[in-house]
Amino acid sequence: MDTRTGLPVVGMVGGGQLARMTHQAAIALGQSLRVLATAPDDGAALVTPDVQIGHHADLDALRTFAKGCDVVTFDHEHVPAEHIEALAAGGVVVHPSAAALRYAQDKQAMRERLSALGVPVPAWAPVSTVEDITAFAERTSWPVVLKAVRGGYDGRGVWLVSTLDDAKSLVDSGTPLIVEERVVMRRELAVQVARSPFGQVAAYPVVETVQRDGICTEVLAPAPDLDPALALMAQRLAIELVIGLDVVGLLAVELFESDQLIVNELAMRPHNSGHWTIEGARTSQFEQHLRAVLDYPLGETSVTAPAVVMANVLGGPDGGLPIDERVHHLFAADPGAKVHLYGKRVRPGRKIGHVTVLGDDPAEVRERAVRAARWLREGE
Amino acid sequence: MDTRTGLPVVGMVGGGQLARMTHQAAIALGQSLRVLATAPDDGAALVTPDVQIGHHADLDALRTFAKGCDVVTFDHEHVPAEHIEALAAGGVVVHPSAAALRYAQDKQAMRERLSALGVPVPAWAPVSTVEDITAFAERTSWPVVLKAVRGGYDGRGVWLVSTLDDAKSLVDSGTPLIVEERVVMRRELAVQVARSPFGQVAAYPVVETVQRDGICTEVLAPAPDLDPALALMAQRLAIELVIGLDVVGLLAVELFESDQLIVNELAMRPHNSGHWTIEGARTSQFEQHLRAVLDYPLGETSVTAPAVVMANVLGGPDGGLPIDERVHHLFAADPGAKVHLYGKRVRPGRKIGHVTVLGDDPAEVRERAVRAARWLREGE
Repeated sequence: MDTRTGLPVVGMVGGGQLARMTHQAAIALGQSLRVLATAPDDGAALVTPDVQIGHHADLDALRTFAKGCDVVTFDHEHVPAEHIEALAAGGVVVHPSAAALRYAQDKQAMRERLSALGVPVPAWAPVSTVEDITAFAERTSWPVVLKAVRGGYDGRGVWLVSTLDDAKSLVDSGTPLIVEERVVMRRELAVQVARSPFGQVAAYPVVETVQRDGICTEVLAPAPDLDPALALMAQRLAIELVIGLDVVGLLAVELFESDQLIVNELAMRPHNSGHWTIEGARTSQFEQHLRAVLDYPLGETSVTAPAVVMANVLGGPDGGLPIDERVHHLFAADPGAKVHLYGKRVRPGRKIGHVTVLGDDPAEVRERAVRAARWLREGE
Repeated sequence: MDTRTGLPVVGMVGGGQLARMTHQAAIALGQSLRVLATAPDDGAALVTPDVQIGHHADLDALRTFAKGCDVVTFDHEHVPAEHIEALAAGGVVVHPSAAALRYAQDKQAMRERLSALGVPVPAWAPVSTVEDITAFAERTSWPVVLKAVRGGYDGRGVWLVSTLDDAKSLVDSGTPLIVEERVVMRRELAVQVARSPFGQVAAYPVVETVQRDGICTEVLAPAPDLDPALALMAQRLAIELVIGLDVVGLLAVELFESDQLIVNELAMRPHNSGHWTIEGARTSQFEQHLRAVLDYPLGETSVTAPAVVMANVLGGPDGGLPIDERVHHLFAADPGAKVHLYGKRVRPGRKIGHVTVLGDDPAEVRERAVRAARWLREGE
């Protein structure tokens, strides 16, 4: 409790853009997000006063950080489970719990648990030796997908492997792996759902996520031309998972749409697939995450426009116009595009922000969003 | 320029809720608002890291504050004109200028200038002695309105006076005054317009402001059942004023609607009559003010829903539920109401936040907003 305001203090471990945007939502609720950042120029550390510099794998730093927080939550999945358990054992309220978060940290544990729950996942197998991969590929077919059990994101830690030699070199590197079939799919979908300790659950509309080189480039909300029965099924699946895995806070479920819905990945925090909700839903994912972990009643998840498209802004090639000039030109070209910059130095390929466009016509809205993101990336 | 991000630094003098909400908008633009606050627990000082504690009437404090700012702007009208001129003479970019701000600081100067511009204002006269008031009342009628030339807001500094004795005691108090006729009106309206140094101008839809005891309680956007010709006239009037007074940034024009439109007050900053724009317009007034003072192209001002109502949350009587419990109950009762709390301690009658509701039916939306604000005020 912040004695100056009579309102709660949420601590978020990790100082990236998710914490940065959660702080914006916290301000409206009369709060100020407390952030554990690894560096003073982390995106969130630049914009919130209550920052501790420390590492998320340092239990002492976590303990100090948690003091005075009503609840501790996360902007990433990298806090060791034993540290989360130690905090909880010491009386700190932590959401999601270590037991839940395990399924967002460890892909093998997630696949095992989802299989046990009867949730559709790709055919997969644990990998101890290269022979496990060969045996799997013989049962399914080459190429196969190898995934690092821990630590992958934005296409990192995922390899499409066509030959035994490639598989061998990955196994030899010592990274714990699982192997999965390559799913033939129509497109990728995502659905977010929030759950509070009280047990209230609220699902957002299903979105389409467009990926390039394993990185999400666009999110189309709601997913265009999605069969309403399939949309309902995706939301039900997400609700089943948020309850089944006992998640408190937000759960993002990434799905493959083929003849059925197949679960690809899970994240238990605000997620890139939900950035569109800042302007595009009545309650943003960032406010919803705060409401959920604080055990406030959840907010309305309906869309605010028929078509919403979020496009990620990646750092472009070196040289060219300074970022401030690019913003200037974009604003001149499209006065309705909503820009979100994360305070990061521009590096090629790095996610430095996103743009959201809202309107009536999905194709036109998408074109504007893509053009706006390209402008910020390339300056033309 | 913030060398960590390559983006500009805006400094806002004053650490109240307007600066607090401007910081939220700055974050999206990749920035972090710099704030000159009088106390560490000012609403904005609680949520932004770049805070200087100092007084807005202390030129040395202002000079220190301005260092490293790309532009300095204001969350109130209380900075002495000579200090703004001194900053500008020292090379600081300040928007709006002292010359423009004078018309928001000095009601007599404003009335004189607007009369000279041919803009409709109430019948008025300067006051040196009580005889000036008597003479004015004989030309018009009792009661008359006395206004402090400087420093009034939220109903303070405005007196409806029916007798010579009451007028005399105000004149005797030494406060510089003007006298105005009491305008018989249908309702109060407001219109906001932004202007950039480049000369671009953008007007928001005209809104109705509902006042109780001189304090704005609700803002209805767009103003219900307003004659489109009158709406256009109000926007044109605001554009004429923002150009005529050479304002850079936001200008709020408060109007009386009678048989014609009569200008009541001016403000040159984000304004309570524009809080609805956070969710209700494509570009919030806070982002628009930043865009204007930074000479960025201005953002789209169209509404995001057919009906938007903002209701101010005033501090209720002492006792009752703590504010956090009230938020909890409100969220349970109306999951779509958008809450904005300013981080202020609750005191009876003090503006501690606002609530915005959006929808299709103006009457229903208004009822929800009023109920939500009452809930936060009274806890029931």
